[in-house]
Amino acid sequence: MWGGRFAEGPSAIMREINASIPFDKALWRQDIAASKAHVAMLGACGIVSGEDAVAIADGLDRVAAEYEANGVPENWDLEDIHMTTENRLAELIGPAAGRLHTARSRNDQVATDFRLWVRDAMDQTDAGLAALSRALVARAEEHADTIMPGFTHLQTAQPVTLGHHLLAYYEMIRRDRSRFADARVRMNESPLGSAALAGTGFPIDREMTAQALDFARPTANSLDSVSDRDFAIDFLQAASQCALHLSRLAEEFVIWASQPFGFVRMPDTLSTGSSIMPQKKNPDAAELVRGHSGRILGCATALMVTMKGLPLAYSKDMQDDKPPVFEAANLLGLSIAAMTGMVADATFRTDRMRQAAELGYATATDLADWLVRQADIPFREAHHITGTAVRLAESRGIALDELTLDDLTAIDARIDDRVYAALSVEASVAARRSHGGTAPDQVRKQVALARAALENDG
Amino acid sequence: MWGGRFAEGPSAIMREINASIPFDKALWRQDIAASKAHVAMLGACGIVSGEDAVAIADGLDRVAAEYEANGVPENWDLEDIHMTTENRLAELIGPAAGRLHTARSRNDQVATDFRLWVRDAMDQTDAGLAALSRALVARAEEHADTIMPGFTHLQTAQPVTLGHHLLAYYEMIRRDRSRFADARVRMNESPLGSAALAGTGFPIDREMTAQALDFARPTANSLDSVSDRDFAIDFLQAASQCALHLSRLAEEFVIWASQPFGFVRMPDTLSTGSSIMPQKKNPDAAELVRGHSGRILGCATALMVTMKGLPLAYSKDMQDDKPPVFEAANLLGLSIAAMTGMVADATFRTDRMRQAAELGYATATDLADWLVRQADIPFREAHHITGTAVRLAESRGIALDELTLDDLTAIDARIDDRVYAALSVEASVAARRSHGGTAPDQVRKQVALARAALENDG
Amino acid sequence: MWGGRFAEGPSAIMREINASIPFDKALWRQDIAASKAHVAMLGACGIVSGEDAVAIADGLDRVAAEYEANGVPENWDLEDIHMTTENRLAELIGPAAGRLHTARSRNDQVATDFRLWVRDAMDQTDAGLAALSRALVARAEEHADTIMPGFTHLQTAQPVTLGHHLLAYYEMIRRDRSRFADARVRMNESPLGSAALAGTGFPIDREMTAQALDFARPTANSLDSVSDRDFAIDFLQAASQCALHLSRLAEEFVIWASQPFGFVRMPDTLSTGSSIMPQKKNPDAAELVRGHSGRILGCATALMVTMKGLPLAYSKDMQDDKPPVFEAANLLGLSIAAMTGMVADATFRTDRMRQAAELGYATATDLADWLVRQADIPFREAHHITGTAVRLAESRGIALDELTLDDLTAIDARIDDRVYAALSVEASVAARRSHGGTAPDQVRKQVALARAALENDG
Amino acid sequence: MWGGRFAEGPSAIMREINASIPFDKALWRQDIAASKAHVAMLGACGIVSGEDAVAIADGLDRVAAEYEANGVPENWDLEDIHMTTENRLAELIGPAAGRLHTARSRNDQVATDFRLWVRDAMDQTDAGLAALSRALVARAEEHADTIMPGFTHLQTAQPVTLGHHLLAYYEMIRRDRSRFADARVRMNESPLGSAALAGTGFPIDREMTAQALDFARPTANSLDSVSDRDFAIDFLQAASQCALHLSRLAEEFVIWASQPFGFVRMPDTLSTGSSIMPQKKNPDAAELVRGHSGRILGCATALMVTMKGLPLAYSKDMQDDKPPVFEAANLLGLSIAAMTGMVADATFRTDRMRQAAELGYATATDLADWLVRQADIPFREAHHITGTAVRLAESRGIALDELTLDDLTAIDARIDDRVYAALSVEASVAARRSHGGTAPDQVRKQVALARAALENDG
Repeated sequence: MWGGRFAEGPSAIMREINASIPFDKALWRQDIAASKAHVAMLGACGIVSGEDAVAIADGLDRVAAEYEANGVPENWDLEDIHMTTENRLAELIGPAAGRLHTARSRNDQVATDFRLWVRDAMDQTDAGLAALSRALVARAEEHADTIMPGFTHLQTAQPVTLGHHLLAYYEMIRRDRSRFADARVRMNESPLGSAALAGTGFPIDREMTAQALDFARPTANSLDSVSDRDFAIDFLQAASQCALHLSRLAEEFVIWASQPFGFVRMPDTLSTGSSIMPQKKNPDAAELVRGHSGRILGCATALMVTMKGLPLAYSKDMQDDKPPVFEAANLLGLSIAAMTGMVADATFRTDRMRQAAELGYATATDLADWLVRQADIPFREAHHITGTAVRLAESRGIALDELTLDDLTAIDARIDDRVYAALSVEASVAARRSHGGTAPDQVRKQVALARAALENDG
Repeated sequence: MWGGRFAEGPSAIMREINASIPFDKALWRQDIAASKAHVAMLGACGIVSGEDAVAIADGLDRVAAEYEANGVPENWDLEDIHMTTENRLAELIGPAAGRLHTARSRNDQVATDFRLWVRDAMDQTDAGLAALSRALVARAEEHADTIMPGFTHLQTAQPVTLGHHLLAYYEMIRRDRSRFADARVRMNESPLGSAALAGTGFPIDREMTAQALDFARPTANSLDSVSDRDFAIDFLQAASQCALHLSRLAEEFVIWASQPFGFVRMPDTLSTGSSIMPQKKNPDAAELVRGHSGRILGCATALMVTMKGLPLAYSKDMQDDKPPVFEAANLLGLSIAAMTGMVADATFRTDRMRQAAELGYATATDLADWLVRQADIPFREAHHITGTAVRLAESRGIALDELTLDDLTAIDARIDDRVYAALSVEASVAARRSHGGTAPDQVRKQVALARAALENDG
Repeated sequence: MWGGRFAEGPSAIMREINASIPFDKALWRQDIAASKAHVAMLGACGIVSGEDAVAIADGLDRVAAEYEANGVPENWDLEDIHMTTENRLAELIGPAAGRLHTARSRNDQVATDFRLWVRDAMDQTDAGLAALSRALVARAEEHADTIMPGFTHLQTAQPVTLGHHLLAYYEMIRRDRSRFADARVRMNESPLGSAALAGTGFPIDREMTAQALDFARPTANSLDSVSDRDFAIDFLQAASQCALHLSRLAEEFVIWASQPFGFVRMPDTLSTGSSIMPQKKNPDAAELVRGHSGRILGCATALMVTMKGLPLAYSKDMQDDKPPVFEAANLLGLSIAAMTGMVADATFRTDRMRQAAELGYATATDLADWLVRQADIPFREAHHITGTAVRLAESRGIALDELTLDDLTAIDARIDDRVYAALSVEASVAARRSHGGTAPDQVRKQVALARAALENDG
Repeated sequence: MWGGRFAEGPSAIMREINASIPFDKALWRQDIAASKAHVAMLGACGIVSGEDAVAIADGLDRVAAEYEANGVPENWDLEDIHMTTENRLAELIGPAAGRLHTARSRNDQVATDFRLWVRDAMDQTDAGLAALSRALVARAEEHADTIMPGFTHLQTAQPVTLGHHLLAYYEMIRRDRSRFADARVRMNESPLGSAALAGTGFPIDREMTAQALDFARPTANSLDSVSDRDFAIDFLQAASQCALHLSRLAEEFVIWASQPFGFVRMPDTLSTGSSIMPQKKNPDAAELVRGHSGRILGCATALMVTMKGLPLAYSKDMQDDKPPVFEAANLLGLSIAAMTGMVADATFRTDRMRQAAELGYATATDLADWLVRQADIPFREAHHITGTAVRLAESRGIALDELTLDDLTAIDARIDDRVYAALSVEASVAARRSHGGTAPDQVRKQVALARAALENDG
């Protein structure tokens, strides 16, 4: 394969460290597609004869059919998917196969194949995230009025609606999708025809291959084209942010499924039991999603470290680009699917949520706000008065609205009995009607906007 | 500050671990701006009286003037920039200061301030990258015809032009700028008015504060708004990619400045000497840029790990968001400025580059391509023939075009004396006129396009 | 400072990117100590005169006294702590100061200073971890009999004792200390005298300086000595593992302090309130410890990435070694201290723990084990029978020991009324007396062993 | 497998995200060994009958023989290697197989298996590093007198010997081995018998199983034992440092193999050619070793992020522990083997090295040192004088020792003609005889010490 230059063949360790076929065979569809686009262009531009171009294209179809039927053979001597395919092509059609590699190099070939693969992965990820979004919006609408405790610092803070809580994740996923979409636009340029690093002297038409492969245009600089793995890092970074969002929802499911919380029953289909404790029903899927975020971050770290400090143009270090991307794409796809199942099928124990919302003095802010509005007290002073009331209630082990009016007026004379209306969790939630707030009508408004957006863009 | 609830004050260790004022005082301009927007809205909506609103706004201006003149005082008892400012405001204008915090919380306040800071950092980074782009394009034009060895695997591969090489970095920086631009659009929504987590019952106008702070719109979900640090991670991820690009150019400068390469003399202003070796002129700036890429990646890792698995809404872990962002922004700004200086002021030793391009059989591909074109040999066969020629020349210690025609025809009879015209480095470079190729006219075309783009967007 | 070589001084950006004095002034004590050891050796070996050696040593003492009194001046033109000190020395004692730098270089000087600093940081960290260990052991002893639910997957699994749970963290911290101790042994070699990279021709005595600075021996290879930052990475890696352990305990405190769990009341001194919600008592210290683990991991990532692919010997990239180490040491020290306070002062709500332990069918395993022992049923079969019993109890909303004997014998005829004795949480805990098990007597045994170990090694 | 509890089976996505058999089948030898130790102990302690114990042990041998012959079957319904083995055992020996899982759980079983695997990986890594050490020492001895330029900042600094340079890597590898050795001691405790999390009520003998598996002792706390993955992180951290060292040597090989340096010819067996450029001989193995350092760091990041913030005891996130460890162990093993081949078989071009050492004013420090010694000038002043001499020589394009004595005395009158003896590269190298310095006799001394150490510990 390397011409007549080497007296010795690669040693055993070299065969093993050098061979990428065990993983890059995943690129076979992209490799065939790019080769077909390339040879069609070579034919159209008169660089190879029409006859040869047809023979090569047909031969590539036959190779593809073999791969489809039997998988890609893994022969380490052929190093990678590119040589594997070209070698099989030569077996099938003879010396004309040697004309396919005219005006290209493995450097632009792998850059093209891998871009195509990553672009597909972005599209599949987006489809998964659209499904997750729909599940979140559906459950949010269902629970637009369901009251639960809103937490900060995992302490009961203020009552919120479950629908509002779920829509927070809709927002995160919306941003994730925009990240993949931005990355897709940025990377959608064809490196094919950059050749080894410097372009080529053959009269190729890079616009033609770009169009054939659905790229917006050819890349502008051949040195950059074969050295660039930004698109793979963009994918891994967007995947990392997405995985972090999923890790947060997974954490909530794990906590909510614990006996002391009891806010949710995870679907049986996404739980497991214990080999020793017969009563267990473990939220394994949520834990695996949370755990996978670590591995996805590890994949992003891997490729970034590998690219650090590499001089132009292509260096072999860059062969380490694919395993992290393949792994992260697989783990993220599984995580999104599992989370969609959890969101869609979880049983929310609304009684437990409601009960918890009433504990923890969640409406204390409402008392402070009431004081501001009714008695025109500066907020800071109202906050102080309310703190005193909470301390009194806590010392007696009762709720805030179980304090008597005498108790309250002893703390501040400006309080009157209208205050009790502000202290129910329903009143608290209904009051927060500011844009993006937790009130049921706000939740329904956001659900409607989300529905419309999902219909427009998938 | 925390109302009347705590019997004991925070202990010494708590004061130290909890106080963010040592770093978040960097947010003071943003904090004042957001508070002024908030109080103007409170006044316009009748939530505080016009008189109080004016008093608060004037007071904030006075606080800002004090900070501008004397810096922000660092009193750990006041914890953060928000309490520091509000406390000073109260000293200056009395109890009315307590009305400023109506209908907001520290959670949405810090989310707003930090977004504003990151948005500014994005704008400054973009300005720095625009300057670097201009420097790259200017030097690329200057060296559109300068021939140097193009490397793959740091082995001489094919001759390229220095202009082409520099434009590869222009492309990377162009992508970096698009990353910051995409992130800016995504994050340009106002969280102000989300309050603690659930929105507020006060009749606020979030559109009004959003407009006052140049946000495109208010955020859609209050829980998400106070829990979201995507925008900071977006910044750190874009900064990481940019730092990786700079690390690659820095690596090249370090290698090029070495005695065996001798391709470049670094500017005296960006080099240092040695405390013990008087002859040294070290490319310190390039090394520091390369080293900083490690720290910038570390900052991105830090915030991502911190956010992993945090349940909604705000958790105090999120206070660890600012130091990595501040550090990365500073290191990246320095790196871009230093690299701009290096690109603008480096002395390229074009004689050494040219000389190196002629070594290493850099035009062997041109021989193979010539065989394909002249003798209609399939590329794979031409590649093999050329390998034999290179082996022969190497065994004699001579260049490819020092082989005699007899030598060449002995290898393959189809070779004739027209081949020598293809084997000069000028011919090699001039031939690669494919789109994005290294030929001088291609470089000039790309320079013109880059110039136009830079004029349009800065 | 760089001799007469440079026509131009460093530019403004270079001053800023190059100056390390803003952070490396933290090394001043180590720098003075190493210089004193060096000059004493130079004197003893006759490389400088006795008179000069004394003058230099006295001068260094005066510089140190100034630093102690007024801090280290931060003059960017003097770049770093080494030049700052030498410059001040020259002002104080005149040209003899110029003899101090004989037979050394900044490269070995900074390697020595930084090693000394890291060694001190290791010792301080170990002292902090010893204190945390003592707190854990004391609380473990206090709660050797306190029953709480043991969780796997955050699901109630089996009853355990709180003492046993706390001792699990004692084990982690014990390993952390052994990691710092191993690293300390590995790094305790003196690089002083390695000079720039190649050693020196002056007849120095490296054993003498090594002993003076409490190093076990001089390093064996001068090129390695100035290029090696393993010791700093060792520190950061050990700190990362320790931070991860602390993040786990912090997570537990956050969950335990939530209203639905209610297992713990965090000390007022390590909690904060809310600016808007007067009832809040937030476990801020625990959250900050958890958040800091992200930043400490980021520091470790930073230095590792910076060191990747650096050729020998010293490169300026390595100046980026100190900020991550200084930051991680500070954050870890704070985290350990805060966690020690939390462990020592937390109020464990043993009633809530006990109550929770009785929910969730925590003794189901005990039923299975009873079946194995009493009826000689293979464990897998016993596990299946118990699962049926749990399902029945769950469907009725009752505890396992509230099933009647008829219920149980209907499931499996081999069950008799002795089974009820196995189903209490006390019986469950007391039974697990295997080595390292949760039984109170096992806990007390482990407490005694831990006490003895702590007395021996601090 | 999970008892009779679940009405529905796991869904398709759950099967896929939950199944660990695709990777944890790598643990089969360890799983069989640990099960055999466990059942032997159950028999000895009378917990299962002698007959059953023998039947189980024999059955396990049969399963192992099947795995050895045919590989481990990958049935996702059986989830993991533990259930796969137990299931096959039951098919082979019937219900007695169900007694094997008495007094243990999958939690302690996987902790034991994985520890055994990691311990083996440590031992294999150490053997690989010993071989690399021997190769380094052999080449160092061969090149104890070979002069090359020593670099700092990749600028020629002072002449050094190649043997000295190679021994620097011996020192790094020595530290790497000590890191694995320390980690091995720390982790060599048996978790078997910790059961699910709380220990067991069966009268087991944990010392017996510990001894059978060559552990030093049983672990001290069952909760910690099933929650602890420190040993895996220790392995990944030590692997990261080792990979960083290899990345530095790989970087040097890549730079040295470039045409402008030409210091080394990489072995044909560890190089590759180009698909387009017939003359190329690429140092692929070195680049892959350098690239793999990124992936190994990514693996370490992955597991650390996964473990962050996990409450006790076992959580399913921890199933993500194995893929990063397996991947890192494989990549590190390949990297060490490839680097050993490169060190052993590289052809050092000593003429080119020598030639380069004479460029770049590498002996300027020797001039400064001579001035200090001969003329008793303070080093700082000598440094300044030398700088002037270098500037003069550089302006004339000549070497330092090509300056005439008149030139030199014009710069400083104290210089006389004895100075020329100090300015040869041989004199420079021979002079640096300080401990650990670059002089050939120092190199031979360090080679002898290294040889002795390698004989003692492998």
